[in-house]
Amino acid sequence: MIKKDKDELSELRLDLVSDDWVVISKARRMRPEMFSKKISKRAVATRSQCPFCDPKILDRAIFKKGDIISIPNDFPIFSYKDDLNERSLGPYHIMDGVGFHEVIITLDHNKHIALSKKEEIKDIIDVYQARYLALKEYKFIKYISIFHNHGRAAGASIIHPHSQLVASPVIDPDLKDSIDGAENYHKKHGACVYCTMLDWDRKEGKRIIYENESFIVLCPFAPQSDFEVRIYPKLHNPDFENITDEEKMSFADAISVALGKIYKGLNDPDYNFYIHTAPINVLGHKNYHWHLVILPKTSIFAGFEMSSSIEVNTISPEEAAEFLRKIK
Amino acid sequence: MIKKDKDELSELRLDLVSDDWVVISKARRMRPEMFSKKISKRAVATRSQCPFCDPKILDRAIFKKGDIISIPNDFPIFSYKDDLNERSLGPYHIMDGVGFHEVIITLDHNKHIALSKKEEIKDIIDVYQARYLALKEYKFIKYISIFHNHGRAAGASIIHPHSQLVASPVIDPDLKDSIDGAENYHKKHGACVYCTMLDWDRKEGKRIIYENESFIVLCPFAPQSDFEVRIYPKLHNPDFENITDEEKMSFADAISVALGKIYKGLNDPDYNFYIHTAPINVLGHKNYHWHLVILPKTSIFAGFEMSSSIEVNTISPEEAAEFLRKIK
Repeated sequence: MIKKDKDELSELRLDLVSDDWVVISKARRMRPEMFSKKISKRAVATRSQCPFCDPKILDRAIFKKGDIISIPNDFPIFSYKDDLNERSLGPYHIMDGVGFHEVIITLDHNKHIALSKKEEIKDIIDVYQARYLALKEYKFIKYISIFHNHGRAAGASIIHPHSQLVASPVIDPDLKDSIDGAENYHKKHGACVYCTMLDWDRKEGKRIIYENESFIVLCPFAPQSDFEVRIYPKLHNPDFENITDEEKMSFADAISVALGKIYKGLNDPDYNFYIHTAPINVLGHKNYHWHLVILPKTSIFAGFEMSSSIEVNTISPEEAAEFLRKIK
Repeated sequence: MIKKDKDELSELRLDLVSDDWVVISKARRMRPEMFSKKISKRAVATRSQCPFCDPKILDRAIFKKGDIISIPNDFPIFSYKDDLNERSLGPYHIMDGVGFHEVIITLDHNKHIALSKKEEIKDIIDVYQARYLALKEYKFIKYISIFHNHGRAAGASIIHPHSQLVASPVIDPDLKDSIDGAENYHKKHGACVYCTMLDWDRKEGKRIIYENESFIVLCPFAPQSDFEVRIYPKLHNPDFENITDEEKMSFADAISVALGKIYKGLNDPDYNFYIHTAPINVLGHKNYHWHLVILPKTSIFAGFEMSSSIEVNTISPEEAAEFLRKIK
């Protein structure tokens, strides 16, 4: 930590969508270079030990595009059944965990997304979209999560590059609050909250990392963690699954640049990324604006965050963006 | 993982207070003994390297009871200033991080709470209460978090046993939702949601770990993580700070039993604990019911939890409680 700012006050910043507060700490301030030092050497697993390198895996593919396949998860969070049982137990409420859980695998054991070609990343997006479109047809599905865990500290139990897709029969209220936040903002201000923030951020320039034709890469004003990076489509669009073919190439380019800068600038940190998009089979989310969230594993969520739900950042998004902008 | 339950459906359980969903996974099910194997050896720091073993630390004590002192945190999340500035920046909203941040230290470098005498734990509770009562007098404070991080994986950067107290000028909406949940339940059912759950849990018996005169130790029906343990006062009481002297001995006994069973049963895991109590200087929380939450660090919050806000458990609270009940 840098001691010089010890007596400076922290900043509490409000997330305009969820109304959540985050802290940008001055007393705990770290320089950007201090983050990459914390990373330990990446674990390696040889192909012979890797369940995703078994040649039989191709037989289990539900969908294939280029070198990317989707298979059912062997340890599913939710699995399919043709009815959805709900029941009470005393004062409590229980529902069957009915849904889908797939693993989206890059066949090459060593092809980390940050080191992949844009065309290869576009294949991954194609598989995300195809599986999303197929599973949203099930009327009991309320939300589809697409996410990627990279490294053990980010919860990846298998090193081989893979994303996951979970189709859930419920929407958690914390997620619903942040989705409804966009509707509430629109009611009050007559504009999309994300479009409003993107306009301001582009005018101010301080948190922008990269832009291409259709996407913008930035550090959000009120980050959930140090070095949080987000990728937004420039055109308002609630639903990820409506992404066009041209937009997919542009999205692949934005992912490649964002993950490449994080890989080089922070020395291949563990990270999670996920897509936040409008719920399905539920009306009234036309003012949502889908996006991708990248959370490098730079700190531990501890007692204060758990008890108060307030995240503490040790680097401002303006400094993080300035650092990542310069990484070639 | 135990493969036999692979095809069994997961259970989605609703938290009656926050309305949050959690999953009890069958496909990912683990046996209780499998948790302690995951724990690596505890890091040690000698007294000579320890900032809390510096004899000068006593000069910084704001409050002292027995061998427990409270000092200002050197790297405060919030610090005191006599006004609270709020301002706008384009569409954004910022507030000064005005508040208090103290460290509550056990003078003995090796006195882990799980290994402390009940009288020593009562001294810690006395300091929690004294500092809480002193800081709630500041009218701009909305919430006081009291928490304890044990071990590096739980975010403790210093090994020497210590708790922390953070007095915040804001309440995050995720915390507010769970506090308001108690009021909403009371409006609908005319009863305290926590008293209702405690009555049912005691009748059913399956999630209860321990009871004494004034407190009950249990695994909650909808846990946030594997082996979550909670300690509730039996008598309805919204405010931790109103705990009586007799109740404090009983609370110390409950903490000693709960942390002792976790220490022995799970092989000294890292953990966080925190107190959830009613907000201050805000009316309308008489139906809240304060309690202590213990979260052993048994798993990593990864992409699914981050993107959906739904926690996935790999052991049911009934199995966790049965296991902990038997630990002497």
